Amino acid sequence: MKVKVKVPATSANLGPGFDVAGLAVTLYNTFVFELLEDGLEITGCPQQFCNQDNLTYRAFVEGAKACGLQFQGLRIECSGDVPYTRGLGSSSTCIVAGIVGAYAFMDRSEERQEILELATQIEGHPDNVAPAIFGGLTVSVMNDNHVTTLNIPVKHDYRFVAFIPPFTLSTEKSRAVLPQQLPRQDAIANVSHLALMVASLINGYDDGLKLGFKDRLHQPYRGTLIKGYDEIMAALEKDEHVLGCYLSGAGPTIMAVIRESDKKGVVRMKEELGHLLNDWQVEKLELDMRGYTCDYE
Amino acid sequence: MKVKVKVPATSANLGPGFDVAGLAVTLYNTFVFELLEDGLEITGCPQQFCNQDNLTYRAFVEGAKACGLQFQGLRIECSGDVPYTRGLGSSSTCIVAGIVGAYAFMDRSEERQEILELATQIEGHPDNVAPAIFGGLTVSVMNDNHVTTLNIPVKHDYRFVAFIPPFTLSTEKSRAVLPQQLPRQDAIANVSHLALMVASLINGYDDGLKLGFKDRLHQPYRGTLIKGYDEIMAALEKDEHVLGCYLSGAGPTIMAVIRESDKKGVVRMKEELGHLLNDWQVEKLELDMRGYTCDYE
Repeated sequence: MKVKVKVPATSANLGPGFDVAGLAVTLYNTFVFELLEDGLEITGCPQQFCNQDNLTYRAFVEGAKACGLQFQGLRIECSGDVPYTRGLGSSSTCIVAGIVGAYAFMDRSEERQEILELATQIEGHPDNVAPAIFGGLTVSVMNDNHVTTLNIPVKHDYRFVAFIPPFTLSTEKSRAVLPQQLPRQDAIANVSHLALMVASLINGYDDGLKLGFKDRLHQPYRGTLIKGYDEIMAALEKDEHVLGCYLSGAGPTIMAVIRESDKKGVVRMKEELGHLLNDWQVEKLELDMRGYTCDYE
Repeated sequence: MKVKVKVPATSANLGPGFDVAGLAVTLYNTFVFELLEDGLEITGCPQQFCNQDNLTYRAFVEGAKACGLQFQGLRIECSGDVPYTRGLGSSSTCIVAGIVGAYAFMDRSEERQEILELATQIEGHPDNVAPAIFGGLTVSVMNDNHVTTLNIPVKHDYRFVAFIPPFTLSTEKSRAVLPQQLPRQDAIANVSHLALMVASLINGYDDGLKLGFKDRLHQPYRGTLIKGYDEIMAALEKDEHVLGCYLSGAGPTIMAVIRESDKKGVVRMKEELGHLLNDWQVEKLELDMRGYTCDYE
């Protein structure tokens, strides 16, 4: 028997929702787990990750410990489309899949809250693992090592266009650049923008999103680390059909929000951004509303 | 013909939602307007406010200018239960009523967005006038002198218990005590608490409210100006049936959130708080879902 776990990519922060908001999108990594007599076989990922340091394997081991699964050997087949170290939650797909895989062998793959707690311990924060587990738009708060995740109901046919650069940006570097002190007005601005963004998504009030996605806590600092960031954000701001844009997670991916009715949106944005995009990848995504799925085969 | 305008009290900030969130509650001021041949007659409020500096009158004059109402004289009869300078939006009831009164004589009393813009200009911020106009729980953001207000749908049978002290606290004094710089972690905390508070109210997730109402941007500073604040907040925190508590507006009123099913909540809290309350007024309120009402008589 094999266990197949499919986990969506995720986009955290959504502008003002630093360290709290995240959403799942329709870009997936798939992991097939099979118990072996002994040994570890990993296929479908670069050679340097095919060993015991593999993140999916480490998460499987932690998951096995937590749910009481005894195993001698394991095969993991990896495949999927989530780009690595781009701010789209690829590491969360590995962590969630590993835990769910182990839980599945104990028939406990639907224990999502328990899986969330363990995944957050391994990842260090819930921003990406929460939407990867529950789907949709989530807000997650840590308190005394307990994670609370709630869904925000999102109206309308919003689409998320990911502009994925050919270069990576490490989360460590992206965190190091943030200042320790802020003007009070920046804090108040972020609180009000988050409130506006959430209320706009609930009410389907498109006109509130451009301001609602504005951030002063991390994007102005992280943007300086990303070649082309200012120009791309400025061009997206000018596009009247773009409802909002933000830095996905710690970057470097930039996310633009449009309506499904804006059928030519991607073509138009590519034209507007022209040479800035060069070899950037552009993906039009929907909200994933389910989070991970787990099947036996 | 007379115009009768009834405006709900409002409670702004809701902990982390500084300068953005507000809600209308079932405590009202009523204003009856009648056009006269000349002169100004004001009844039902302290003598020192019965003149041309009266806030309701000034708002009526501004409203008349904005909607093109010509008038020579005016009578205003005031009545109601909203305590003055206690952080429950009494001045907003005056401003909103004045504008709505003038608009009503031009048959335009339902132009709530226009009335919101004008009321915000007079009040200086939308936190209280927005829920007084639209009812329910609102978030309001100012951008280029334009106000956007959206409702957050609140689930469940929440009740709001106002602890209203016998003393006043001026908004100016209450603003002056706030620091200009903050640790980044405080800003992030407020953003996450606001997200949790809003998501908890939407989902009817009571367990998220105690943390969700916590604030680091204004309450810790303003609390020092209010005798008994720390003790009352601490006692409310300990009460397992109290879902959350916060400083209403700029204070000094403290608001506790309970469920309607907690029938003995007010009696219990009064016992728990004992001598701390001395001559404080305690009012159990519901959300007002309509905002102002306007009738002719």
